[in-house]
Amino acid sequence: MDSLKPLLDEIVADLRARTDKGRVADYIPQLAKVSADKFAIAVAPLSGPVVTAGDADEPFSIQSISKLFTLTLALGQIGDRVWDRVGREPSGNAFNSIVQLEHEQGRPRNPFVNAGAIAVTDIILGGHRPKEAIGEILRFVRFLANDDAINIDRLVAQSEQAHGDRNMALAHFMRSFGVIQHPPAEVLGVYFHQCAIAMNCRQLAQAGLFLAANGRNPLTGFNVVSSPRARRINALMMTCGHYDGAGDFAFRVGLPGKSGVGGGILAIVPNRAVVAVWAPGLDANGNSLLGTAALELLVQRTGWSVFG
Amino acid sequence: MDSLKPLLDEIVADLRARTDKGRVADYIPQLAKVSADKFAIAVAPLSGPVVTAGDADEPFSIQSISKLFTLTLALGQIGDRVWDRVGREPSGNAFNSIVQLEHEQGRPRNPFVNAGAIAVTDIILGGHRPKEAIGEILRFVRFLANDDAINIDRLVAQSEQAHGDRNMALAHFMRSFGVIQHPPAEVLGVYFHQCAIAMNCRQLAQAGLFLAANGRNPLTGFNVVSSPRARRINALMMTCGHYDGAGDFAFRVGLPGKSGVGGGILAIVPNRAVVAVWAPGLDANGNSLLGTAALELLVQRTGWSVFG
Amino acid sequence: MDSLKPLLDEIVADLRARTDKGRVADYIPQLAKVSADKFAIAVAPLSGPVVTAGDADEPFSIQSISKLFTLTLALGQIGDRVWDRVGREPSGNAFNSIVQLEHEQGRPRNPFVNAGAIAVTDIILGGHRPKEAIGEILRFVRFLANDDAINIDRLVAQSEQAHGDRNMALAHFMRSFGVIQHPPAEVLGVYFHQCAIAMNCRQLAQAGLFLAANGRNPLTGFNVVSSPRARRINALMMTCGHYDGAGDFAFRVGLPGKSGVGGGILAIVPNRAVVAVWAPGLDANGNSLLGTAALELLVQRTGWSVFG
Amino acid sequence: MDSLKPLLDEIVADLRARTDKGRVADYIPQLAKVSADKFAIAVAPLSGPVVTAGDADEPFSIQSISKLFTLTLALGQIGDRVWDRVGREPSGNAFNSIVQLEHEQGRPRNPFVNAGAIAVTDIILGGHRPKEAIGEILRFVRFLANDDAINIDRLVAQSEQAHGDRNMALAHFMRSFGVIQHPPAEVLGVYFHQCAIAMNCRQLAQAGLFLAANGRNPLTGFNVVSSPRARRINALMMTCGHYDGAGDFAFRVGLPGKSGVGGGILAIVPNRAVVAVWAPGLDANGNSLLGTAALELLVQRTGWSVFG
Repeated sequence: MDSLKPLLDEIVADLRARTDKGRVADYIPQLAKVSADKFAIAVAPLSGPVVTAGDADEPFSIQSISKLFTLTLALGQIGDRVWDRVGREPSGNAFNSIVQLEHEQGRPRNPFVNAGAIAVTDIILGGHRPKEAIGEILRFVRFLANDDAINIDRLVAQSEQAHGDRNMALAHFMRSFGVIQHPPAEVLGVYFHQCAIAMNCRQLAQAGLFLAANGRNPLTGFNVVSSPRARRINALMMTCGHYDGAGDFAFRVGLPGKSGVGGGILAIVPNRAVVAVWAPGLDANGNSLLGTAALELLVQRTGWSVFG
Repeated sequence: MDSLKPLLDEIVADLRARTDKGRVADYIPQLAKVSADKFAIAVAPLSGPVVTAGDADEPFSIQSISKLFTLTLALGQIGDRVWDRVGREPSGNAFNSIVQLEHEQGRPRNPFVNAGAIAVTDIILGGHRPKEAIGEILRFVRFLANDDAINIDRLVAQSEQAHGDRNMALAHFMRSFGVIQHPPAEVLGVYFHQCAIAMNCRQLAQAGLFLAANGRNPLTGFNVVSSPRARRINALMMTCGHYDGAGDFAFRVGLPGKSGVGGGILAIVPNRAVVAVWAPGLDANGNSLLGTAALELLVQRTGWSVFG
Repeated sequence: MDSLKPLLDEIVADLRARTDKGRVADYIPQLAKVSADKFAIAVAPLSGPVVTAGDADEPFSIQSISKLFTLTLALGQIGDRVWDRVGREPSGNAFNSIVQLEHEQGRPRNPFVNAGAIAVTDIILGGHRPKEAIGEILRFVRFLANDDAINIDRLVAQSEQAHGDRNMALAHFMRSFGVIQHPPAEVLGVYFHQCAIAMNCRQLAQAGLFLAANGRNPLTGFNVVSSPRARRINALMMTCGHYDGAGDFAFRVGLPGKSGVGGGILAIVPNRAVVAVWAPGLDANGNSLLGTAALELLVQRTGWSVFG
Repeated sequence: MDSLKPLLDEIVADLRARTDKGRVADYIPQLAKVSADKFAIAVAPLSGPVVTAGDADEPFSIQSISKLFTLTLALGQIGDRVWDRVGREPSGNAFNSIVQLEHEQGRPRNPFVNAGAIAVTDIILGGHRPKEAIGEILRFVRFLANDDAINIDRLVAQSEQAHGDRNMALAHFMRSFGVIQHPPAEVLGVYFHQCAIAMNCRQLAQAGLFLAANGRNPLTGFNVVSSPRARRINALMMTCGHYDGAGDFAFRVGLPGKSGVGGGILAIVPNRAVVAVWAPGLDANGNSLLGTAALELLVQRTGWSVFG
């Protein structure tokens, strides 16, 4: 991995020079004010130190990348019964679409569209109070990243809540079918806080390591999930991790990945490494424009695609 | 690969004992009369002989697996301009759905749903006559499999044509948007013949070898496609190769694959091997029920998943 | 109108004898417990006393018939600006569908589907507090019916609220597009109370009289709406008043009408009379099964269809 | 009706002065070349001569107004079994949409959307050859209008056929569900000819008279349909006669009507008269912009709305 540092620097230089940076999410002011010029990349190998370039120590809002962590947590709690509530198929629709919910009796297509992630959060909420569930999710992310400095950006969480009508609609709709069980305001209280977790690329790459290492976190030695479950989560990231851009991400990058509207992407290179990128400008599907381009470059240069 | 033969025999024995075999496609009599008890598996390693078990020398109708070969052929003819006509995203809908075509101006979601494959066939038809295009496709499949004994089952082709209203609807609909350019009857004349190609599992596994070997067919030494294009085709198989069951196939099997309603599945193990299975009974999404189960077992035992 | 009484008695006798009474709404216990054997009809002529038969003095939950009264009230408050927020087209979908809202930027198709009625209630809410808006609606209905004994069934309203997730979803969804402006909980607080207004057929027929009499209530002499507006409200009832059964109601009955899941239907015979029927059993579209049959009989015998 | 002539002249003068004339249909050259300045109106009273103004003796392509005549013909042939194949509800979608066909097993929503009219034509085709069916339809229209000078514009028919992919898609799609039974090319051969019937406003108004006169054509004394059937056809025109603009037409005009993309509208005033208008420019829903405005004016001045 010694040769990675110059490669990452080269990628940062290349992408920083691009003029089309995509469009920073602006549905809440806290995201809108982030500069489109930010760019970071971090590669965490299975052993050895994380290699980074760019703004890799600056935290950003992980947003939907949190869906990966809550899915893992819920699977740990109730196992494959998660799939009684949430499907495993790409949606062919926007991340916040409600159309399929009506056509499919309130059952979300997969845990990485908003509806599915809300249903997963409802599972985690269990009998707890929202505050406890938020604490549990945060502790789990810190445990995965092996870093207790990770925190929630409360301003982001509040702002999400103030602009949360679309997600409230999804939650009430699912509840009318019995797919979620807690009051929507409580479920979304937790959901908006998980989306507001702030991490830097270094932390994010570390938090994903268990998925590249057959379920065992090499930083801590803990078995987070079983080896088959790690593979399955990777499979879900591949087919559903980029909303209605999952096919294109697989086509161009060829790695399981999960994106967030904060501009972050977490990508898994099975048995090798984890890559986290951050570039706030988004493409039409809500995925990081330059983040995807950076991963495409990295895979071209390293040959890390899972597809040969 | 020496140890594969006993494993394949074991898988065949296991699956033959199962009572739920799914439902054989019955929309045309030629498919309906195939016995649900047929079962075959063939593994073609990058070097060395194909290993088989079950009815691996009995030809069956490859149906939608042909979409993989025509896509490869069309990419060879007009390169990435294929993507001007066809998308690369999973559809979230049934293989023969027309709803998204109306919502998306007649542009098919990907080359592996019926509409997309018809658009690809329209490309191959080019200025040729249907008979010539059919000949070209057949020659290409023989070239890939390195086997000139492969043929088209004319009865199947005729029967498809006699029951082809749904596909005719897709073709006319796309033509109303200018997405296909030839008369629908001609395009579907070719399409129904490509679907009626009959192959056995041995031939099918061989025909897919270029996708496991960075684009080069190890049987013949010919470079079929470039290495990046092979990866990209694999990616499309992963996200779109099993219709509205692609997510589940990735979750359970973890390999790029393409299924057909004849009960065949072709799966790629990058840099290792190609697997072809055949079991005529289908699941609700139109994918081989026991074929998928066989691949799941094989991957569990070999660790061949691309996801770690 | 003297000959009406025997005709109404005959209709009641005929319908009471029928065995297929439809299915009483059971989404809340207060509606589920109403007997499917109830049946009432009342005809209010433009002048002279109301003629009734059956349980015409027994109050029932008017449910969606209230949408007619709130639309009239909102039109009185802000005039044709109502149509900036709500369309005037039949939906071709179920009364509580959310699909079209997503396809049409949150704008409800018409004021008689749930989403549209919620948007109308948002208008009435204006700057008021929910309690005041509820009072205003109740006063308006009493004024129309010229009967201060009309009241709200608080148990029904509370029960609706406890089962209101689907409507909450519609409200939050519209709010995410700016179509409604007040907090969904407040809007639905009013909406559930308007739906819980209890009236008998006599009162209901009287409350609709202004629509048969060019906008002027002949009981009180008050001009409720202008003559063109009365015609337009009748037109909306004809094309949108029976959800996805409006075409069938027009075909069979041929009068503008508005139904409610409590089993009531209010039908307008322009320049002649108003008819209110009540039979709690519903058809598949949520319209009163025997109520529709009764109106069909009545129109056959009286020749009151607007269609010749 | 003596006072009608000055009123019609006034309406023509008013509308001719308007600058926004809508957009002439341009999907085939024969329609595209018609001048947007054409304007005609004809009123046929139940007795007495037709009153006209503008270009009322100039024939135009009746297009979808023919759906009214073929529905009447099919009802005469197989009675209410027509409704086994076609629904009676507004679609909430564009005239040529295929989405609902997929969601509703190939059954068209009503006989006035393209799919429904094609299914009706399939009924008329019966065991006949296309040429015979075309002849029968033409004879029926001449019989209704009491005018043998009415003809089919063969150039229009041919041009429709050359641009008929969307309708071919609808026909094949329905045939895949068994909703239509003849080969789509034959059904559409008839359909395109019926759409290409050319009539002037005088003829059109006369052809609709039976619908205003309880089923009996006052010109000829023939009973075309029974009185209840006349009412029901009027009801269908009201709820479904203007595609996804039916609600608006009822709201503004308040008469049963059927429009065509040639710019014609036929409107029924039960027990009084029939009105035909022609203005080639269309609104966004494909209905005559100025034709609708003319009818709105006429009804305002005459009080002919069925809604009071």
